[in-house]
Amino acid sequence: MSKKGIIAVISGFSGAGKGTVVNELIEKYGYAVSISATTRKPREGEVEGKSYFFKTKEEFEEMIEKDELIEYAQYVDNYYGTPKDYVLSQVEQGKDVLLEIEMQGALKVKEKFPEVSLIFITPPSVGELRRRLQKRGTETEEVIEKRIARAKEECAYMQEYDYIVENAGLEECVEQMHALLQSIHLSKNNQQALIKTITEDFDQ
Amino acid sequence: MSKKGIIAVISGFSGAGKGTVVNELIEKYGYAVSISATTRKPREGEVEGKSYFFKTKEEFEEMIEKDELIEYAQYVDNYYGTPKDYVLSQVEQGKDVLLEIEMQGALKVKEKFPEVSLIFITPPSVGELRRRLQKRGTETEEVIEKRIARAKEECAYMQEYDYIVENAGLEECVEQMHALLQSIHLSKNNQQALIKTITEDFDQ
Repeated sequence: MSKKGIIAVISGFSGAGKGTVVNELIEKYGYAVSISATTRKPREGEVEGKSYFFKTKEEFEEMIEKDELIEYAQYVDNYYGTPKDYVLSQVEQGKDVLLEIEMQGALKVKEKFPEVSLIFITPPSVGELRRRLQKRGTETEEVIEKRIARAKEECAYMQEYDYIVENAGLEECVEQMHALLQSIHLSKNNQQALIKTITEDFDQ
Repeated sequence: MSKKGIIAVISGFSGAGKGTVVNELIEKYGYAVSISATTRKPREGEVEGKSYFFKTKEEFEEMIEKDELIEYAQYVDNYYGTPKDYVLSQVEQGKDVLLEIEMQGALKVKEKFPEVSLIFITPPSVGELRRRLQKRGTETEEVIEKRIARAKEECAYMQEYDYIVENAGLEECVEQMHALLQSIHLSKNNQQALIKTITEDFDQ
C-alpha cells in the first residue's frame, strides 16, 4: 500500500523561529516545501521552478481565476501564491508538504481544505520573542515593537489552529514537529486506505 | 507550567496485540493504566487497589448511580468498570492514562468525554490476525472463527476512532504509539494552558 503524503500549514509569530525549524525538517527528514508563484522579478541567482515560479501579472490572475492556487496574497504591487498542482503532485508521490504561511492565509487554506493540519509555533514567552527579534540585529526597536504588537493581535487566533508547538529549543522543537507530523498520518482521515484494505480483506 | 496528562482509550480486534503494546508503553515510557472496579471475587494473588478495586454489588451500583464510573459493563453476573476518581487524579498529576476498553465501551466513553482520544490498533491483514490467534494456542478453531467474525463486524466502527495504528511489529508499533500520545499533548485542546500563558504574557 503506497501512502499519500500530508499537507501541514505552519505559522507562528514573527521571531518564533519557524523558518529555522522548517529548514531543519527539510534537511533532516526530507519534508517537501511548496514553491511559491510570484509576479515579482527574479533577483540574481534565483532559479525558475526552484526559488519561485515566476509569472506575469496576467498569468497569475489567470491562475486565480482557474482556482489553481491554494492561497495567494498581494504585497505592494506583487502577487505571491501557492500553486495547487505542485503541492498535490508531491502529496501523490507520498511526500509530506510543509506550507509556511502567515496566519490570515493559513486560516483561508483551512477553510478551503479542512483536511490540512494547521500548526502554530510559539516561543515560550513574550520576553523570549523579544530577545529573538533583538538578536537578529536587523530590525530597529520600532519595527520590533510593531512585530510584538502584531503577535499580540494574532494570539486570539491560536485557537483556530489544530496544534500548538512551543519552540523552547531548536532540536527539541524539530523532534516534536517530526513526531507530530508522523502522528498526523495515523489520524482516521489519513488512514482511509488502511481501513479500506482491512475491511476488504475481511470480505474475501 | 505543570502539564496535565491525557486520557487515551485503546481498542483493537481481539488478537491485534493491544495488550502487549500497552504493557510495553507502561514499562518503557511510564504510562499509567486505569484500575478497574469489579464485583467478582478476588482470585489468589490479586491485590485490592492494584489488580482491581473489589466492590460488593451494592457498592458498585451506588457508583453507577453517583456517576463515579467512566464506563462499565456487565459480564455474566459481574460488573466491571473504570472509576473516574482514580483516572482523573492520575491526569491531574500529569500522568497520561491508557484505558484498554473494547469497542462498544470506547464509543460510550467518547460520547461522554469528547476530549478523550480513541486509538484503534489493527494487525496489517486478516491473515495476520488469524495467525496471531492460532499462535496463542489457547483457543479452538471455532472460537478463532467467532473472534474473526466479531472483528469483521467491528470494522465498520473504525471510522469512529480518532487514530488508527497498524501493528505490523511490536517495537515499531510501541514507538508509533508513544509518538502519537506525545503529539496528542500538542493538540489545541491540550494546549489551553500554554495559550493562556502566552496571551496573559502579552497583556502585561
